[in-house]
Amino acid sequence: MAKRKSGALLTRIVIDRSSRAPLFRQIEDQLRGAILAGSLSGGTRLPASRALSVELGVSRQTVVQVLESLAAEGFLEMRRGSGTFVATTIPQHVPQRVPSTVAPGMPGNAAPRVSLLGSRFGAAEVDFVSRENRLFLPNSPAYDQFPFALWQKYVNRQARQAYRGNMGYGDPAGHAPLRQAIADYLALHRSDACDPDQIVITPGGHAAFMVAALMLTDPGDGLLFEDPGPLIARNLFESLGRKLVHVPIDDEGMDFEATVARGGGERLAFVMPSRQHPLGRTMSLARRLRLLDWANANEAWILEDDYDSEFRYTGRPLPSIRSIDRSGRVIYVGTFSKALFPALRLGYLVLPPALVGMFRNAIALMLRSVPLAAQMALAGFIADGHFASHLRRMRELYAERRQAFLVAAARSGAGLFEVDMPDSGMNVIAWLQEGRNDRDLAQRAVEAGVHAYPLGEYGAQPLPRPGLLLGFTGVAPHQLGPGLEALARVLACTG
Amino acid sequence: MAKRKSGALLTRIVIDRSSRAPLFRQIEDQLRGAILAGSLSGGTRLPASRALSVELGVSRQTVVQVLESLAAEGFLEMRRGSGTFVATTIPQHVPQRVPSTVAPGMPGNAAPRVSLLGSRFGAAEVDFVSRENRLFLPNSPAYDQFPFALWQKYVNRQARQAYRGNMGYGDPAGHAPLRQAIADYLALHRSDACDPDQIVITPGGHAAFMVAALMLTDPGDGLLFEDPGPLIARNLFESLGRKLVHVPIDDEGMDFEATVARGGGERLAFVMPSRQHPLGRTMSLARRLRLLDWANANEAWILEDDYDSEFRYTGRPLPSIRSIDRSGRVIYVGTFSKALFPALRLGYLVLPPALVGMFRNAIALMLRSVPLAAQMALAGFIADGHFASHLRRMRELYAERRQAFLVAAARSGAGLFEVDMPDSGMNVIAWLQEGRNDRDLAQRAVEAGVHAYPLGEYGAQPLPRPGLLLGFTGVAPHQLGPGLEALARVLACTG
Repeated sequence: MAKRKSGALLTRIVIDRSSRAPLFRQIEDQLRGAILAGSLSGGTRLPASRALSVELGVSRQTVVQVLESLAAEGFLEMRRGSGTFVATTIPQHVPQRVPSTVAPGMPGNAAPRVSLLGSRFGAAEVDFVSRENRLFLPNSPAYDQFPFALWQKYVNRQARQAYRGNMGYGDPAGHAPLRQAIADYLALHRSDACDPDQIVITPGGHAAFMVAALMLTDPGDGLLFEDPGPLIARNLFESLGRKLVHVPIDDEGMDFEATVARGGGERLAFVMPSRQHPLGRTMSLARRLRLLDWANANEAWILEDDYDSEFRYTGRPLPSIRSIDRSGRVIYVGTFSKALFPALRLGYLVLPPALVGMFRNAIALMLRSVPLAAQMALAGFIADGHFASHLRRMRELYAERRQAFLVAAARSGAGLFEVDMPDSGMNVIAWLQEGRNDRDLAQRAVEAGVHAYPLGEYGAQPLPRPGLLLGFTGVAPHQLGPGLEALARVLACTG
Repeated sequence: MAKRKSGALLTRIVIDRSSRAPLFRQIEDQLRGAILAGSLSGGTRLPASRALSVELGVSRQTVVQVLESLAAEGFLEMRRGSGTFVATTIPQHVPQRVPSTVAPGMPGNAAPRVSLLGSRFGAAEVDFVSRENRLFLPNSPAYDQFPFALWQKYVNRQARQAYRGNMGYGDPAGHAPLRQAIADYLALHRSDACDPDQIVITPGGHAAFMVAALMLTDPGDGLLFEDPGPLIARNLFESLGRKLVHVPIDDEGMDFEATVARGGGERLAFVMPSRQHPLGRTMSLARRLRLLDWANANEAWILEDDYDSEFRYTGRPLPSIRSIDRSGRVIYVGTFSKALFPALRLGYLVLPPALVGMFRNAIALMLRSVPLAAQMALAGFIADGHFASHLRRMRELYAERRQAFLVAAARSGAGLFEVDMPDSGMNVIAWLQEGRNDRDLAQRAVEAGVHAYPLGEYGAQPLPRPGLLLGFTGVAPHQLGPGLEALARVLACTG
């Protein structure tokens, strides 16, 4: 009986002599697999090593190595004088079919039992298509103008000087010189004085939203959210089970008076006062102060995404809500994704002193720390003034590209779209005629090699008009005319 | 009345001519601050620009610049023919005292209202002391033997080749060549064949624990946890509100039969089967299979931290639980913190196919993506065989250091501690005589320049004996003897 079974086993072991895996490993894996699958059950006697060696066409030494290894692992038992047996201590396994394809993790009858968060994240619609090199991609820096050689010098310099002393986990709050450099930058360029100890470095701005939502709101808590608003942040907060309270946008930014007057007990407001995404509005000073009053009166928090504050083409930026906060209700988020590049994955929080310990602990326990090499390089890059001068250079470049976009769009887009160009930022809205389907047009634009986000996707409430969001900062001069012409053709030729 | 107020204002504006901040910025910030603080109320008329210029000792142009800027921000109103006034649209602010020091965020009467998670994370005890260069620090690679120049070559090569096409957010699941390199490595060195699509790159192994806990368990769900077990993971899970069910360890690893027989409905088991931290036990094959049966029967999950599987000095490692899982219940976590260095912050998950979509979405929405530069460098480093050869070199080096430690400890520690040296890993336990206070001794050891973790800190239940956890892999030969002598002196001289 045992002979028959092991005979069956031998014919099933297939040796691939072209494989990188050593022979003994191949045999061992298949033998172990057969035991786990139940096709070799506990107590079965294996053929003698000499017989196995002949059948498999490998040296006896290889067979012995396999048997000893599986015995050491507990799969086999070698009984002196009577041979080698499949271990009887192995529980009887009913072979289970392992799903063979990578499923999207949608909830449903066949889905595995996971947490409430897990089922929400599993069901979230996340688009994984890479768009990095698409023309008119919103929020896209001018990668072609990035000072690679200079940046690399800082990466190398920091590496040489610092590897030996900085290979461990590092400070969960972030590399101290980087926090100092950011505090200096904020004081000089945003007129916002903060203590470097109020700063916590995060792996990108988005991670800061995640930590803030978890620390400041409970599942089911209301969260004021600008409508239309940023898609990925909305997706994150909804997946975390926070109740989004969509607030309309007007020329002064988030128009929250009517919403908060209802007294829904919202605990957090997520706002982009410098330049609201995607509409490009700036929140007025009066609104900023009113929002602070609301937060203060309701023990609520303001999560301020100081998005795009770096690139303003006319006038000076308004002070951040954080810098005029007298009562410690603002969690300020900055990122280097727009000013440098997203793959750097560095952002930061500026926190009210009472929240610093909590957020440091959250980073320390959730992530241990943020990668150090990039933090060290960036600290040097800022401290030596290169960040400020890169921003200045980009502001000038983007001002030129903005102007060129306006001129070219007036020519190509006449009668097809109206350009809504904000005073700051990296994107423009091309408003379409009423009744046009911006999602459909955006899809056709992509097919024509031009990227456009349909504005309709950003809103919980329908927008008054359809429109397309286009980025102008990453578009080199020679690409601009042909790109806008291609877009115009799509708009002209699609029903 | 207005004159008086503005007079008061003027004496309060202090100009620091040694500051890097421009004059107009200094004046503007103080003026804005006075308005926000309520010391200049809405409707107050400011002195004429000429008068202000004389009083402050700055040019009239500077004063005009300040007034125009604050008017643009909405703080002032310039009424043609009648002068400049503090805007009446500014809500009346009751000045609030901003907390002036960075508080640890402890909950209590004076603490701000945050979420349940926030209060737990705020109250967590997290130790931020950097220990990187302490002697005998557990889990510390031999940084002095790290191939810096070779690693830097990969960092540079990838940077040169790849910056331009890889500056955006990148694939949230991780850089595809790195996932392929990890899959190849696991197949060859862990006998674990997986599809690269089952792999999700994380910013370190710990982030993988965080995501897995959130996706697979709800707050209040039971989580089987080895006792004693890793401190930071315990702190994380407890802060996330998961109910830790502490399971004792014996020579076969986590001894969970009695616990699961109680039918507590636990949803997840966090295990370190290769080498349990801190006791250094390896989970037996029979236990691994039983744990799989439990997970399968209870629709529960196994979070397998394949900690320290790389460094085994005698015999071959047991197959990972994941590699013998026939029913897709194992979430496998690997990290490069031990094999390379922690500051790299790269780890990975190998997921059952049904969970891949959910975990990808979680990384995409919580973090957007993981920094690309380090992923690209590591992918090349692995693909070119340097990772495998570095591990081989370190395994040989650590075997030597392990042997040297045993010899030196036998000499220095006789009568003071007994060494419990596992077959694998980077740490050793020095068991102390009963009745000794390991926390107190560890504290004194640190004062003597030697790092030791008291074993008592790792357990929810008291351990049978006190002990100290010491790392031997990061200790260079010339440090070993003096270090153990220093430890012995502490043990001999402390009550």
